[in-house]
Amino acid sequence: MATITIITTTITMSDRNSLLPILYIGAPRACPDILHATRFAASDPVVLLVDGPRLHIVVSVLEAGRAARQIPGADVQTTASLGLEPGAGYAEWALALLRKLGIRKVAVPDTFPLGPAKKIDEGGCDLVIRPARSTRPERLVKTPDELRKLRASQKAAVTGMLTARDLIAAAEIGPRGVLRLDGRPLTAERVRETMRAAILPLGCIDEDTIVACGDQAVDPHEMGHGPLRAGAFVVIDFFPRSLETGYWGDLTRTYWRGELSPEQRRMYETVRKVQSAAKRRILPGADGADVHRFVMDAFVDAGYETGMRDGKAYGFFHGTGHGVGLAIHESPTLGRVQNTLAENMVVTDEPGLYYPGLGGVRIEDTCVVTPRGAVPLATCPIPA
Amino acid sequence: MATITIITTTITMSDRNSLLPILYIGAPRACPDILHATRFAASDPVVLLVDGPRLHIVVSVLEAGRAARQIPGADVQTTASLGLEPGAGYAEWALALLRKLGIRKVAVPDTFPLGPAKKIDEGGCDLVIRPARSTRPERLVKTPDELRKLRASQKAAVTGMLTARDLIAAAEIGPRGVLRLDGRPLTAERVRETMRAAILPLGCIDEDTIVACGDQAVDPHEMGHGPLRAGAFVVIDFFPRSLETGYWGDLTRTYWRGELSPEQRRMYETVRKVQSAAKRRILPGADGADVHRFVMDAFVDAGYETGMRDGKAYGFFHGTGHGVGLAIHESPTLGRVQNTLAENMVVTDEPGLYYPGLGGVRIEDTCVVTPRGAVPLATCPIPA
Repeated sequence: MATITIITTTITMSDRNSLLPILYIGAPRACPDILHATRFAASDPVVLLVDGPRLHIVVSVLEAGRAARQIPGADVQTTASLGLEPGAGYAEWALALLRKLGIRKVAVPDTFPLGPAKKIDEGGCDLVIRPARSTRPERLVKTPDELRKLRASQKAAVTGMLTARDLIAAAEIGPRGVLRLDGRPLTAERVRETMRAAILPLGCIDEDTIVACGDQAVDPHEMGHGPLRAGAFVVIDFFPRSLETGYWGDLTRTYWRGELSPEQRRMYETVRKVQSAAKRRILPGADGADVHRFVMDAFVDAGYETGMRDGKAYGFFHGTGHGVGLAIHESPTLGRVQNTLAENMVVTDEPGLYYPGLGGVRIEDTCVVTPRGAVPLATCPIPA
Repeated sequence: MATITIITTTITMSDRNSLLPILYIGAPRACPDILHATRFAASDPVVLLVDGPRLHIVVSVLEAGRAARQIPGADVQTTASLGLEPGAGYAEWALALLRKLGIRKVAVPDTFPLGPAKKIDEGGCDLVIRPARSTRPERLVKTPDELRKLRASQKAAVTGMLTARDLIAAAEIGPRGVLRLDGRPLTAERVRETMRAAILPLGCIDEDTIVACGDQAVDPHEMGHGPLRAGAFVVIDFFPRSLETGYWGDLTRTYWRGELSPEQRRMYETVRKVQSAAKRRILPGADGADVHRFVMDAFVDAGYETGMRDGKAYGFFHGTGHGVGLAIHESPTLGRVQNTLAENMVVTDEPGLYYPGLGGVRIEDTCVVTPRGAVPLATCPIPA
């Protein structure tokens, strides 16, 4: 049944802070804003309206009890309480809620689903689009409870990382420099499996863990595969999430066996020093873009150029850091864009250098921003 | 910077099949359509245009190599090849691709993000909204390779389920009917942990596993908690996903220890028989709504009414089944809506009955549709 209609009411875009209530449609588990606002870890979609401190949530009849228990003080509505048919869609849930509250204009994140947006717009409610990275600034500065949860996930990351370190240290160097353990090659896959098994008892799970040996690490989206080798860097980037709390950890270390070349050694030392120096610049009031510029300049000063060759990037071609919370990548970033840091924000500090032939080096801690600089959420030794 | 603009070109809605190319923006891992079309298991968003058999994909420069290797025959573009700034947004990626191809009208799923939709629309490309459940009908009938992957996940589900069954069977009945094992109460949490540990070596992970004893199972969104008790049903609904392939398994069994009441026994037997009988009606050419109606009628014929009391549903208040693939819930459904089944579709068969005081019974297999009826993807004994 094709209905051809031109959107006639206003869907506008705004980057400003706004006093408009914010409307969401999504599964709390998959939408950090909704999970942050409600702490309701449901897998089925809900409609949420955040009107200052007041939360209005529409859930299915089946979830009403759990929602009322888990979101104290919220106005919990259901299809039944809104007088809707059981088969009504999420746009109808939202429209019924907005009509009940007499609201005719709301903000929505730019990730809001288009189909429901069009129906809500046609139903007479104007939508103002806001960038999803800014719809819930409450996520930026972490509460003591959030810091506790982030620390727990970061400690799990350390547990997994040390398992990997110990595997690599225990390996022997076999023919053609291939690392061997217990009579078989030590592969990226084996390291990854061992790390995962180490964090599961801590209630955490990882996906996409990078264990990249040699030039594999130069392609930042190569997860790494096959046997590890001596005389090459092994970049391990590990970001587990707590299944219970939803908060992430994020940790990278670079290990090696056997002898490094003088060039490799100098590259490693440079990353180690720059990563440490950046911590002292990650301060309340500092601009994340300045931290990133410091790192870029420090690499150039040390003689490490960044560029492209044959369609492939080399040098330092990613951001210096990103926020970590209910999303693995969230605001603020330490990158090209201006972002003022504040105390108790949580950001990664992860400079790296990558050159074909030399391999990659990245060192990353997830840190809380303090007046003394960035303090890692959990301690994990950095090889010297 | 508020820009107030009325959308002037056409964003239309259509439920029809369409020859229009379909445009997606999303992370392949999080978007089953994109993952199905490309088999490119990336975590960062891409822009994908599916034009009949031809795939055009825009990825970051860093992912170009991996995308070209993993999506044979695809037209892989990057911000560089499209002449975009590195900081360009996904809407700009999409517009640059559409302009390069001379395309001025595309279909998008109704889940398409609103912000990019507005920018693409303003950039001169008309959007036709299609329900996300129907944008990729290729997902409905599973290929032999998909059936193999689904079987592997379902076998993992069976492995976990039998672990739970054995724990419950090994428990002793302690004071006040609480099940005890190794000197401590056997809780829902313990069962869940043991199941998870059993499937991890199989490369699968679960979330939201239900282990619900007694009346906990009557609230279908209660995951279950605390000690299990004798004389009560324990509903275990387990849906692991393969971390490697992304395909899901889905399996429910109802166990118990000690004596059931005659009413509980009859309720269990009814669900067991109806679940088995439904399998014979899940045939190529059958309508999922007819299967669901059969189950509803069978329960009513056996004297089991469905309704609401004090805002809580009782009886049989969920669908009979749903498709399983790269999403845990996908088309076709066996529910209120008409859905013609076809050979090699994969659906669950999961009738259940729930009454406060009696508890819940649900039995679920994930089955392939064959001319001989629904055949479970993996065998898991059903207690008699």
